[in-house]
Amino acid sequence: MDDDMEGGNLGPYQERLRVFPNMRTKPYTPLMFRLLMRINVRVLFVLMLLGFGAIFYIGASTSPIIVFVFSVCIISFLLSIYLTKWVLAKDEGPPEMAQISDAIRDGAEGFFRTQYGTISKMAVLLGLVIFSIYLFRSTTPQQESSGLGRSTSAYITVAAFLLGALCSGIAGYVGMWVSVRANVRVSSAARRSAREALQIAVRAGGFSALVVVGMAVIGIAILYSTFYVWLGVDSPGAMKVTELPLLLVGYGFGASFVALFAQLGGGIYTKAADVGADLVGKVEQGIPEDDPRNPAVIADLVGDNVGDCAARGADLFESIAAEIISAMILGGTMAKRCKIEDPSGFILFPLVVHSFDLVISSVGIFSIRNTRDSGVLGAIEDPMSILQKGYSVTIVLAVLTFGLSTRWMLYTEQAPSAWLNFALCGLVGIMTAYAFVWITKYYTDYKHEPVRTLALSSSTGHGTNIIAGISLGLESTALPVLVISIAIVSSYWLGHTAGLVDESGIPTGGLFGTAVATMGMLSTAAYVLTMDMFGPIADNAGGIVEMSQQPESVREITDVLDAVGNTTKATTKGFAIGSAALASFLLFSAYMDEVASFANVTFNQVDIAIPEVFVGGLLGSMLIFLFSAWACSAVGRTAQEVVNEVRRQFIERPGIMDYKEKPDYSRCVSIVASASLREMIKPGALAIISPIVVGFVFRVLGYYTGHPLLGAKVVASMLMFATVSGILMALFLNTAGGAWDNAKKYIETGALGGKGSDSHKAAITGDTVGDPFKDTAGPSLHVLIKMLATITLVMAPIFL
Amino acid sequence: MDDDMEGGNLGPYQERLRVFPNMRTKPYTPLMFRLLMRINVRVLFVLMLLGFGAIFYIGASTSPIIVFVFSVCIISFLLSIYLTKWVLAKDEGPPEMAQISDAIRDGAEGFFRTQYGTISKMAVLLGLVIFSIYLFRSTTPQQESSGLGRSTSAYITVAAFLLGALCSGIAGYVGMWVSVRANVRVSSAARRSAREALQIAVRAGGFSALVVVGMAVIGIAILYSTFYVWLGVDSPGAMKVTELPLLLVGYGFGASFVALFAQLGGGIYTKAADVGADLVGKVEQGIPEDDPRNPAVIADLVGDNVGDCAARGADLFESIAAEIISAMILGGTMAKRCKIEDPSGFILFPLVVHSFDLVISSVGIFSIRNTRDSGVLGAIEDPMSILQKGYSVTIVLAVLTFGLSTRWMLYTEQAPSAWLNFALCGLVGIMTAYAFVWITKYYTDYKHEPVRTLALSSSTGHGTNIIAGISLGLESTALPVLVISIAIVSSYWLGHTAGLVDESGIPTGGLFGTAVATMGMLSTAAYVLTMDMFGPIADNAGGIVEMSQQPESVREITDVLDAVGNTTKATTKGFAIGSAALASFLLFSAYMDEVASFANVTFNQVDIAIPEVFVGGLLGSMLIFLFSAWACSAVGRTAQEVVNEVRRQFIERPGIMDYKEKPDYSRCVSIVASASLREMIKPGALAIISPIVVGFVFRVLGYYTGHPLLGAKVVASMLMFATVSGILMALFLNTAGGAWDNAKKYIETGALGGKGSDSHKAAITGDTVGDPFKDTAGPSLHVLIKMLATITLVMAPIFL
Repeated sequence: MDDDMEGGNLGPYQERLRVFPNMRTKPYTPLMFRLLMRINVRVLFVLMLLGFGAIFYIGASTSPIIVFVFSVCIISFLLSIYLTKWVLAKDEGPPEMAQISDAIRDGAEGFFRTQYGTISKMAVLLGLVIFSIYLFRSTTPQQESSGLGRSTSAYITVAAFLLGALCSGIAGYVGMWVSVRANVRVSSAARRSAREALQIAVRAGGFSALVVVGMAVIGIAILYSTFYVWLGVDSPGAMKVTELPLLLVGYGFGASFVALFAQLGGGIYTKAADVGADLVGKVEQGIPEDDPRNPAVIADLVGDNVGDCAARGADLFESIAAEIISAMILGGTMAKRCKIEDPSGFILFPLVVHSFDLVISSVGIFSIRNTRDSGVLGAIEDPMSILQKGYSVTIVLAVLTFGLSTRWMLYTEQAPSAWLNFALCGLVGIMTAYAFVWITKYYTDYKHEPVRTLALSSSTGHGTNIIAGISLGLESTALPVLVISIAIVSSYWLGHTAGLVDESGIPTGGLFGTAVATMGMLSTAAYVLTMDMFGPIADNAGGIVEMSQQPESVREITDVLDAVGNTTKATTKGFAIGSAALASFLLFSAYMDEVASFANVTFNQVDIAIPEVFVGGLLGSMLIFLFSAWACSAVGRTAQEVVNEVRRQFIERPGIMDYKEKPDYSRCVSIVASASLREMIKPGALAIISPIVVGFVFRVLGYYTGHPLLGAKVVASMLMFATVSGILMALFLNTAGGAWDNAKKYIETGALGGKGSDSHKAAITGDTVGDPFKDTAGPSLHVLIKMLATITLVMAPIFL
Repeated sequence: MDDDMEGGNLGPYQERLRVFPNMRTKPYTPLMFRLLMRINVRVLFVLMLLGFGAIFYIGASTSPIIVFVFSVCIISFLLSIYLTKWVLAKDEGPPEMAQISDAIRDGAEGFFRTQYGTISKMAVLLGLVIFSIYLFRSTTPQQESSGLGRSTSAYITVAAFLLGALCSGIAGYVGMWVSVRANVRVSSAARRSAREALQIAVRAGGFSALVVVGMAVIGIAILYSTFYVWLGVDSPGAMKVTELPLLLVGYGFGASFVALFAQLGGGIYTKAADVGADLVGKVEQGIPEDDPRNPAVIADLVGDNVGDCAARGADLFESIAAEIISAMILGGTMAKRCKIEDPSGFILFPLVVHSFDLVISSVGIFSIRNTRDSGVLGAIEDPMSILQKGYSVTIVLAVLTFGLSTRWMLYTEQAPSAWLNFALCGLVGIMTAYAFVWITKYYTDYKHEPVRTLALSSSTGHGTNIIAGISLGLESTALPVLVISIAIVSSYWLGHTAGLVDESGIPTGGLFGTAVATMGMLSTAAYVLTMDMFGPIADNAGGIVEMSQQPESVREITDVLDAVGNTTKATTKGFAIGSAALASFLLFSAYMDEVASFANVTFNQVDIAIPEVFVGGLLGSMLIFLFSAWACSAVGRTAQEVVNEVRRQFIERPGIMDYKEKPDYSRCVSIVASASLREMIKPGALAIISPIVVGFVFRVLGYYTGHPLLGAKVVASMLMFATVSGILMALFLNTAGGAWDNAKKYIETGALGGKGSDSHKAAITGDTVGDPFKDTAGPSLHVLIKMLATITLVMAPIFL
C-alpha cells in the first residue's frame, strides 16, 4: 500500500470481517526470537552475561577500547529489548485490525523465509567460490612472514563473509519483525492519542535501529578481537595490528551481498504489488486504493514491510559495516606509514564513534517520551517537529561526543593538534548530512518551488508532467554533488594538514580525514534509521486504519503520521546516498591499499588516460544504467503478472465486487513473492558477476600485452565511474520519485483542481513512474555502489 | 511538425487558401548566396578559379597533399552547386503548396537570423576573452624558440576560433537553406512519382552534406597551409610542422561553440512548437495534427528546419572538424616521438580521408539516380532499400579508399607494415559505425522485440508505458558501450603493435590507432549526413502535402518517405554519438599533449585516486545531468508559452475553428523563436562556463596547497567523466525517444487497439516525453561532449 490512502466506500462491517482470511498456516517466529521473548528478563540478563563473558575476555585481551564497545553494544541491546517489550505490551486493537495485521504479518514472514532461503543458498555457494579463490590466491609478504597461510586466510575470509551475511539477514529480519507487530499497535493507539501512536512507531523504529547499528558494531568488534587473539597479533613475528582490518573485508561483502538482494527483492515486491493493485483496482475497476475487494491489497501492504523495513535495515547495516571496515583499513595504513606507536586508537576509532552513536541516538529516541507529558499543547503539535527536536538533541550530542572521541582516540604526540583537525572533519561530515537532508527536502517537499512547478506542469497533461519530473530529478543532482565535492576536498585537506607525516615527511592524513568525515556523517545513523523505520510503520498503520474503517478522527491522525513518514523516508534516502558516496571513496582507497599490499608494488594511481582503464570506466557507468533498467523493468513485468491475476479473480469470482465472494489474497501474495524472487536474480547477478568478469578479462589481456596489474586498474576505474554514475542516478531516481509523489499529494490538497481532475490524473501517472524509481532502483543503487566496492576488495586476488 | 501526420478533416479548399498569409516582410537571402545563385555557372567557375588561385599557391608551397585536398573540395563544391541547380529547377507545385512553403521559409530564416545574430555576438565576445587570455598566457618553449610570441599566438587562436564559428554557422545555414526550398519540391514531385520525390530529397540532402564536409576539410586545410607559409614552418629555427596542428584548436572550438547553441536553440524551438501545438490542438481542441486552424502549426513546421537541418549541419561540421584536428595533433605528436622524417603524411592523413569521403559519398548520392531508370519495378521498391544500396556502395568504396590512403599516407620505412595495422584500425571504425547503426535500429524499430514490448506496456496505461520506455532507454546503453569498448581497445592495440617506436623503443602508435578508427567511423560521413538531411526534408514535404490536402496517393508516398526519414534520423544519432565517443577520447589525449607542451612537464596521467581529481569527475558527470535537465525543462517551459498563446488566440478569435478567422501564425513563430533564444542561454552558458570555473578554482586551490597542475588534472578528469556520462545519457535519451515514437507508430498500424484506443493515448504520452529527449537534450549532448573537449583545449592556459 502506498502512502496515498483514499477514503473508501467500504461495505458493511460484517462483510468486511468475512473477507479477511487467516492465511497463517503455522505460527512462525524463529526459535531464537521465541526463546528470547518467552524467558524472563532477569534470566535473559544472566544468560547474556554468561554468553558474553567469553567475548569480553577476548575483548579485554585485545584492547580496553573493545571492552568499552562491547559494553555499549550490550547495553543498547538491553535497551532495545526494553523497547520491544514496551511496544508489544500495547494492545492490538479490535479483532478486525488484528486480522488485517495477521494477514500482513503472514505474508511478510512467508516472503522473508523464501527470500532469505534463496539468498542464503546463494551466499553459501558464493562462500565456496571465495574459499576456492583464496586457496589459490597469493598471500601478502606480510602475511607470509606472520605465518598466515592460504588456508587460514581462506577460512578467515569465508567466515567473515558468512557472518556478515548472517548479521545482515538478521538486521533485515529485525526491521520487518518489529514493523509487522508495531503497525497494528500504532493503529490501535491512534484511536486514543496521536502522541501515543507516534511514540509507539518511534520506539518500534528505535528498537530495530539500535539492533541494526549495535549488531554492525559488535559483529566487527568480535571478529576483530577474535582474530587478534587467535593470530597472536602484535606478538613478535606475528601479524601487525595495522594489517588486521584487511581481514574483515569479507564481513562487509557478506553484508552488502545480502543487502543487495534484500533491497532488490523487497523493492520489486513492494512496487510491483503497489502498481499492479492500482492498475486494476483504481484504474480499471474504479475501486479506491486499499479496498478489501482488491485481491492484491494484502500483497501491497506486505510490500511495505519487506520493501521498506527489511530492506532498509539490511541496507543501513551494510552501510555502517562497510564504512567502519574501510575506515579501520585506512586508519591502519596511515598509522603504519606514520609509525604511530599505538595504532589501535586510529583503527578502533570508528567502533567508538558508533558506540557513541548508540548512546546519543538512544537519548534522542527517549527524548520523544518527554513531549508526551508536556501538557495540553500536545495534541496540535506537529509530529515532524517532535521528531526534529529529537534529531536536534542527537545532533548536538553527536558534535560533543565526536569531539570527545577524537581527543580520546586520535591524540598522538607526533601531531598534538591532529585530533582537532579530525574533529573538524567530523563536523564537516555532520554538516554534509544536514545539507543532504535539507536539499532532499527542498526538492521533494511541496512547500517549496520545485514540486509546485511540477504540479503545475500536470495541468497540461501526462507528458508534460513526466518531462518536468525527469528534469527536476536530473537537476536535483547538482547541489548534492557540490556538497559532497566540498566535503571530500575540505575533509581531505583538513586531514592532510593535521600534521601526521610519514618517514619522508609527506603528509598522510588526507584520506583518513575523509574517513572521519564519513563517520561524522554517519554519527547519528541510529537516530536517522529510527526516523526512517517510523515511516513504513506509520504507513502500514494508516492502511490498517483505513481498511478497518475507523472513524475520520483516527484516520486523520494516521494520515499526519504517514505524511511525516514520507518526509523522513525521503530524507533518509538523501542521507543514505551521501554516506554511500563518501564510503565508496574510502572503500576505493582501501581497495588500492589492498592491491598494493598483495602485489607488493605501489598502487596509488588510476590513470584514466590508459585506454583500457578508460574502457573500464565506460563499463562501470554502463553497469549503473543497465542495473537501473533491469530493476525498473522487473517491477513493470511483475506488476503485469499481478494485473493478470487480479483480472482473472474478478472474472472468475464476480461476487467479489459485491462483497459476496472472498478474493484470494494469498494467491496474489505468492505470485508477487515468487515473481520478485525470480526478478531479483538478473540485476543482482549482473552486479556481482560483471566486476569479476571485467577484472579477470583485463587481467588476462594485461598478461598477454605485458601490462602488469591491468585487471586491478581497470576494476578500480570501473568502480569509481560506477560510483559517480551511481550516486547521480540514485539521486535522480530518488528525487524524481519523491517529487512526483508529493506533487500528487499537493494536488490532492485541492490545488489545481484537486482530486479527480485531469491534473490529478496526470500526477498519478507521475507517481506510478516514480514508484520503481524511488523504492526499487534508487535504493538498490545505494547498496550496489557499496557492494561493488566490497566485492572488488574481496575478489582482488583474481584481478592480480 | 512531428512525424505523425493524421488525416485531417480540413475545410473547403478556398477557405484553406485564405488562411496562409505571406509572412515574408522582405525577401531574404544572404548576399553571398544571391550572388552565387544569379551568375552564370561558367563565370562562377572562372571566378572560383581565380579566388582559389592564391589558396592553391599557398597549398602548393605547403605540400602536394594539400593541393589534392583543395582540388577534391573544390570539385565537391562544384558538384554541390550542380545538385542545387538540379533541385531548384524542380517545380514548386500549386500555389497552396508554395504558400505554405513560403511561410515556413520565412519563419525559419527569421529565426536563423535572430539566432545566429545572438550567437555571433556571443562568439565575438568570447573571441575577445580568448584573446585576452592568450595575451597573458605562457607560451611553449618550442613556440618561444620559433619566435611565436604571445600576441601572434593570440591572433592565431582568435582568428581560428572566429573562422570555425563562421564556417559552422554557414554549415547550419546551408542545411536549412536547402531544406526550406527542397521540401515543397519534394511535395510537388510526390504528386508525380515516388522516385522523383526521393531523388530530390536525397540530392538536396547531398548538397548540404557535401558543403558541410567540404567546408570542414577546406577550412582546416586553408588554415594549416596559411599558418605553414606565414610562420615559415620547418625552415631552420622556426616551428616544427608537428607543432602546427595545435594552432588549429581554435577552429574546432569555434565550430563546436556555434554548434552547441544552434542545436540547443533549434532543438528547443522544434520540440516546444511540436509539444505546444499538440497539447492545445490535439488534446484540448480535438483538431488533427497540422490542421491549419492551429495557430502553432507553422511554428511546428519551421521547427523541423531549424532543429533538424540547421542544427544537424552544424553538429556534423563540428564533429568532423574536431576529429580532424585531434587526429592531426595526435599524428604530429606520434611523428615527433618516432622521429619520422616526413611527418606530413601522418598529420595530413585525416584531410585525405575526408577528401575521399567526399568522393565516395558523391558516388553514393549519384548512385541513387540509377535506380530511377531501372524500369517498372521502381514504383514498389522500398525507399529504405534504395538508400541502403547507396550506403553499401559508399561503404565498399570507403574500405577500398581507406586502405589506399593508409598505404599512401602512412607508409614509413621505419615500420613498413604499420600502414596495414592502421588500415585494420580503419576497418574497426567502419565496423563500429555499422554496429551502432544496427543496434540503434534494433532498439528503435518496431520490427524488433524491444519496441513491441514497449507498445504492449502501453496497454496497461501511461505509467507503465513510461517505466518501460525508460527501462528500454537505460538498457539500450549496454551494447553500444561494449562495441565502443572493443573498438577503443582493439584499435589502440593495433596501433600499439604497428611497429612505430620512439627513441627508447616504446611503441607509440596506440592512440593514433584509435584516431584512425575514428576516421574510419567517419569515413562515410557525407553520405550519412545526406541520409540524415533527407529525414527532415521528407518530414516537411509530408506536412506540406497534408496541409495542402493532396490526394491520398500523394500522402502515401510522403508517408513512406517520412517513415524512412525517421529511421535514418535515428540511426544517424547512433552514428553521431559513436563518433563523438571516439573523437572525445582523441581530443582528451590531444588536451594532455597540449598541457604537457605548455607546462613543459610530462602530463600523461589522470589519477582519479587524488580526491580533487575524483571531485572533478563527480562535477563532470553532474554537468551532464544538469545540462540534460535544463535542456528538457526549457522545452517544457517554452511549450507552456505556446499553449497560452494558442489558447488566447482560440478565445479571442472564436472564428478560427470555423475557418472564419485567420490564426496569427507569425505570433506563435515569434514567441517560440524568442523563447528558445532565451532558453538556450542557460544550458549553453553552463556548458561553457563550468569547465573554465572548475579549472580555474582548482588551479588556485592547487597553487595554495602546493599541488602543481591541479587545475589541468581536475579538468581532464571532469572531461572524461562528462564524456562517459554524456555518451550514456545521450544513448539513453535518443533511444528512449525513438522507441516511444515508434511504439506509437506501431500501435497506429492497428496493433493493440490501434488509433484512438487507450493504448494509443498512453503511447502518445510516451512520444511527448520522448520528443525533448531525442531532439533536444540528446543531440545537444553530442555537441556538448565535443565542445567540452575543445573548450578545454583552447582554455588550457588558464588551468596551468
